[in-house]
Amino acid sequence: MKALVFKGPGQKSWQEAPKPTLQSPTDAIIKMHKTTICGTDLHILKGDVPEVTAGRILGHEGVGIVEETGGAVSNIKPGDHVLISCISSCGKCDYCKKGMYSHCSNGGWILGHLIDGTQAEYVRTPFADTSLYKIPPGMDEEALVMLSDILPTGFECGVLNGKVSPGDTIAIIGAGPVGLAALLTAQFYTPGEIIMIDLDDNRLEVARRFGATRTINSSREPVIERINELTGNKGVDCAIEAVGVPATFELCQSIIAPGGHIANIGVHGKSVTLHLETLWAQNITITTRLVDTVTTPMLLKTVAAGKLDPLALITHRFKLSEIIQAYEVFGHADREKALKVILTNE
Amino acid sequence: MKALVFKGPGQKSWQEAPKPTLQSPTDAIIKMHKTTICGTDLHILKGDVPEVTAGRILGHEGVGIVEETGGAVSNIKPGDHVLISCISSCGKCDYCKKGMYSHCSNGGWILGHLIDGTQAEYVRTPFADTSLYKIPPGMDEEALVMLSDILPTGFECGVLNGKVSPGDTIAIIGAGPVGLAALLTAQFYTPGEIIMIDLDDNRLEVARRFGATRTINSSREPVIERINELTGNKGVDCAIEAVGVPATFELCQSIIAPGGHIANIGVHGKSVTLHLETLWAQNITITTRLVDTVTTPMLLKTVAAGKLDPLALITHRFKLSEIIQAYEVFGHADREKALKVILTNE
Amino acid sequence: MKALVFKGPGQKSWQEAPKPTLQSPTDAIIKMHKTTICGTDLHILKGDVPEVTAGRILGHEGVGIVEETGGAVSNIKPGDHVLISCISSCGKCDYCKKGMYSHCSNGGWILGHLIDGTQAEYVRTPFADTSLYKIPPGMDEEALVMLSDILPTGFECGVLNGKVSPGDTIAIIGAGPVGLAALLTAQFYTPGEIIMIDLDDNRLEVARRFGATRTINSSREPVIERINELTGNKGVDCAIEAVGVPATFELCQSIIAPGGHIANIGVHGKSVTLHLETLWAQNITITTRLVDTVTTPMLLKTVAAGKLDPLALITHRFKLSEIIQAYEVFGHADREKALKVILTNE
Amino acid sequence: MKALVFKGPGQKSWQEAPKPTLQSPTDAIIKMHKTTICGTDLHILKGDVPEVTAGRILGHEGVGIVEETGGAVSNIKPGDHVLISCISSCGKCDYCKKGMYSHCSNGGWILGHLIDGTQAEYVRTPFADTSLYKIPPGMDEEALVMLSDILPTGFECGVLNGKVSPGDTIAIIGAGPVGLAALLTAQFYTPGEIIMIDLDDNRLEVARRFGATRTINSSREPVIERINELTGNKGVDCAIEAVGVPATFELCQSIIAPGGHIANIGVHGKSVTLHLETLWAQNITITTRLVDTVTTPMLLKTVAAGKLDPLALITHRFKLSEIIQAYEVFGHADREKALKVILTNE
Repeated sequence: MKALVFKGPGQKSWQEAPKPTLQSPTDAIIKMHKTTICGTDLHILKGDVPEVTAGRILGHEGVGIVEETGGAVSNIKPGDHVLISCISSCGKCDYCKKGMYSHCSNGGWILGHLIDGTQAEYVRTPFADTSLYKIPPGMDEEALVMLSDILPTGFECGVLNGKVSPGDTIAIIGAGPVGLAALLTAQFYTPGEIIMIDLDDNRLEVARRFGATRTINSSREPVIERINELTGNKGVDCAIEAVGVPATFELCQSIIAPGGHIANIGVHGKSVTLHLETLWAQNITITTRLVDTVTTPMLLKTVAAGKLDPLALITHRFKLSEIIQAYEVFGHADREKALKVILTNE
Repeated sequence: MKALVFKGPGQKSWQEAPKPTLQSPTDAIIKMHKTTICGTDLHILKGDVPEVTAGRILGHEGVGIVEETGGAVSNIKPGDHVLISCISSCGKCDYCKKGMYSHCSNGGWILGHLIDGTQAEYVRTPFADTSLYKIPPGMDEEALVMLSDILPTGFECGVLNGKVSPGDTIAIIGAGPVGLAALLTAQFYTPGEIIMIDLDDNRLEVARRFGATRTINSSREPVIERINELTGNKGVDCAIEAVGVPATFELCQSIIAPGGHIANIGVHGKSVTLHLETLWAQNITITTRLVDTVTTPMLLKTVAAGKLDPLALITHRFKLSEIIQAYEVFGHADREKALKVILTNE
Repeated sequence: MKALVFKGPGQKSWQEAPKPTLQSPTDAIIKMHKTTICGTDLHILKGDVPEVTAGRILGHEGVGIVEETGGAVSNIKPGDHVLISCISSCGKCDYCKKGMYSHCSNGGWILGHLIDGTQAEYVRTPFADTSLYKIPPGMDEEALVMLSDILPTGFECGVLNGKVSPGDTIAIIGAGPVGLAALLTAQFYTPGEIIMIDLDDNRLEVARRFGATRTINSSREPVIERINELTGNKGVDCAIEAVGVPATFELCQSIIAPGGHIANIGVHGKSVTLHLETLWAQNITITTRLVDTVTTPMLLKTVAAGKLDPLALITHRFKLSEIIQAYEVFGHADREKALKVILTNE
Repeated sequence: MKALVFKGPGQKSWQEAPKPTLQSPTDAIIKMHKTTICGTDLHILKGDVPEVTAGRILGHEGVGIVEETGGAVSNIKPGDHVLISCISSCGKCDYCKKGMYSHCSNGGWILGHLIDGTQAEYVRTPFADTSLYKIPPGMDEEALVMLSDILPTGFECGVLNGKVSPGDTIAIIGAGPVGLAALLTAQFYTPGEIIMIDLDDNRLEVARRFGATRTINSSREPVIERINELTGNKGVDCAIEAVGVPATFELCQSIIAPGGHIANIGVHGKSVTLHLETLWAQNITITTRLVDTVTTPMLLKTVAAGKLDPLALITHRFKLSEIIQAYEVFGHADREKALKVILTNE
């Protein structure tokens, strides 16, 4: 089969690779239909994720058809149309039993990371019964690719942890795909105001189309003053960090109201300064989270009911065999006005 | 009357002061029976709390008898035996309605801070109906002085925010009065292990007597290794910071398990480093809180039922007129093996 | 002034009555602008609420202008434009401190019940600071009349108690005004399916317009079979009872899924049969609630943000002086296709 | 092997039966060490549980040693010392993923019910990885037998659903084994008063020894008046029903305070009357639950930490081969002053 293989920092190749085979009785082999590229894949290619070794097939998102299952798989059978979660959950360890699949003692985020991933014609998925989700008939495959990672990430790490509630004023810092996923799913809880902050006017325009009630371009507007005006100097009830650099996390601390929630989604490479000298008395909550994808069944129901339109996140479509070109576009998302790309295994 | 008056950094005096009078229809005048000294009073005396101006009567804790009430006070009447909360709550503003009395738009922590306090023969308390608590007959006055501030602080900021649960392994960093208050009230939720960390062997011995199952003297034991041994390298479910310096907050980050809670109680004078480069993926929650005293009714019930013994926190007793000597002892708590002192207005 | 006076069962009169005066320092006198009629008023007129005595001015909803305030009122001042909550909350008792204003030891539902109410040119409202809500400039008065009672009732007793969540399948039994209020506010939490059940085709059509995804006319459709079809025999996640008779409460028990919530809103005059012989093992939750109006600030924010349109509930408008005619219409709601009527004091 | 076989209503036999063998790759075969008898077993013997057919080996509790495991079992291996949960959980279905193991689509309560149970020398347990719990070294086997069913039942259905909180006044109706299990585990949350109600003085004496602060013998004391005296006519914050007959469920309704929780544990054979004509406005919550045993890991930690002493529940001990005699004793629990019996497979 063909697959996108990581060849070490800065190098990748669309090349022949051995078709995966069952290695454990809880595995499934999936023929990929659709996959996508994640910002994390770009980080891997830069060399930022050293545990990914040369030769690894990348990708942790997608939908496909089950081709083969191990002897212990009972929920899923060959021919099933499935959504692949970016998190492999054994369903048996203490963390899985608590719904913290991200820290599964036997899995977690391993696809396209510690084992071969989904940017290939076939993929082996461990713990098939608890890591794949059957797709109800009639649902759009491309929409569901957005449920592998980006939508549960925005929802669980941003919206649920941020305790977004009806009438709240919330701010989302970063209008990239994950910030927009938070924006889309925050609306499940009907906040009164959603303020989107980014440097890129195009992304802010997308955010307005997606439901942001206010946008602030932080490259030319004084964010803190604008927020103070909008909130009567009170600050926001919830600040969602969807960038991953110290400056944006500090901004969250400057705009949070007493009693508010700072929900971190961003993948941080550096420590940040926490201003406990003021915040100690502000009754705030700060959360971090690697997505658990424990809300995938809920998100599937909202998509089925027409309450969430993941297609809005897709800007570009390619054949899987054009993946090098897709990386080129996604890697220059600003220039290309790209959010998420879809790769189809035709 | 006599009162303890702040005379500017480093100076205080037990001297004559005008007896307080009603200034608003929601006020009460209380004849003090018992009061105490808080670590915050020492900070004020050092000059760390610049909004406290010379001439201010200190103190924000105590019990007494209501002498006079304003025309709008309906729950409390002259002759009532009352507990004075360190937080004045108007009961009407948005924050009070949410139970966040600490941020009351009209009150909050003002006693012995922005208005004259309780280290005096009489005190004026604003918002009497919502800031005083009637003492049920037969309850011990000295025990209840501990409910003005220190016990709700340890309980709300440490135990409730830390979501202490049956069977949990928790760590409390700092075995001073507030850390010990957290230790006492954490046991309401039956954690399996309570690890107390401090530099002072005497305080750690007190902690063991109060229910700590393990103690670590961080001046000579490697805390992180000890915690790793005790938890099988998993870390603690809840870390309560009861010191207020960067090193102890960093320690909390080093010992917290995935999915765990760091509950800050400490009053911090400096920013701290937050290690988001590792914690971003650890699904942790960090909370800060100025005590709301919203749990005072619950704490009163636990004391009345004999489930909490606040007297354990009291090590020294003085007449109110000996308050200068009491400050001397409390100001050298280590040397004097002092926890809380009681001052009685005889 | 003129007022609608209850003259004993079956009798009422629009007649001269003494203009109310301040009786306590926490009172306010309000010049009414708009009020409405509640189903409860009809019950009072039937004689179903024996504690309402002849001579009582009815009504517990409305908006107006503050004319005068007692000496202890500090949040509200003459000239303020205010929303009157149907629940008078003292803000000081144990119940109010817990947010259970409905059981306020000094208030609760007393307007138009134990004291004179709002169907008059003026009304005296007790506990003005904690029972009136200032109306932000520019908001529609008629919309806000719906926030006095019906919308918080549907929201608190039905939606919040029912724990409506994204993607859920919920059923609302009864498409009268309160059931429709639950329908409108349930959408704050983005359920996947909202099944509305009633006997009246007109009301079901209104329900569809308001966002119901399915409707069942229980006079000619087998409700349980329909629900079983729609849910794959699983039942609904949440059943909201908005009628108040045994048959509808029994229906809730027949359609609830394991783990589901039955939220009662209906005012019941009789006991009902609870089928513990089957439900004991079904892990369900049943709740009852008299509205607390503790969510009024949240609802105000959702209206201000355009997320809730209370005007949709209003079908008829009258001058206050035409209130007898308004009662005639509201008392024959089916015939008149009436939901809520607005009465304007011109 | 030998086993206790149900022979139809009223009949049982300790007789030879085939040793169980693996039937599915997720099974384990356990050599039983200790088991017990449950009130449910008595119901089965009376013929109250018609789905139990003649020939069935009874029992759903116990500890033992794993002898053999199916090919898909990975957490548990031969030689492991394990606690058997009364609930078999597949870990894969929607209910298991929500922690509602009692309604597992593939398991639930099946041991000694739909498949052969634990009152035997060997038992086959399905879904071994998610239904067995490894016993930490040094823990007492007999104590752990109490964790198979009775303690999680009292804790989950009574204490957790009843939201027992520090300082609360709670009532437990029924001082049989399950009521006493609720009593023991309620103390995890430090209620102020625990009122135990039963007809049997011996059981009430046991309850006092176990931590009840008050007891009421309902055969000769007027329960409602006594509760009213004890609570100042307010009622209890939480009423736990641990009997399963209409009279006791009605009693819960008579003693519950506004805002309180009625948590049903009892297995009911008949419907009950729910007094919505008064309770509709009392803001109460009623819950039902078949135990999920989702708290078994938490309970194991509390036993390991010495915070819960399950041995207190054990009054009689027999050899497994004396099981007929043990049934005789347990079946006359009042006369024999029996709580739980332990059967040891020697």
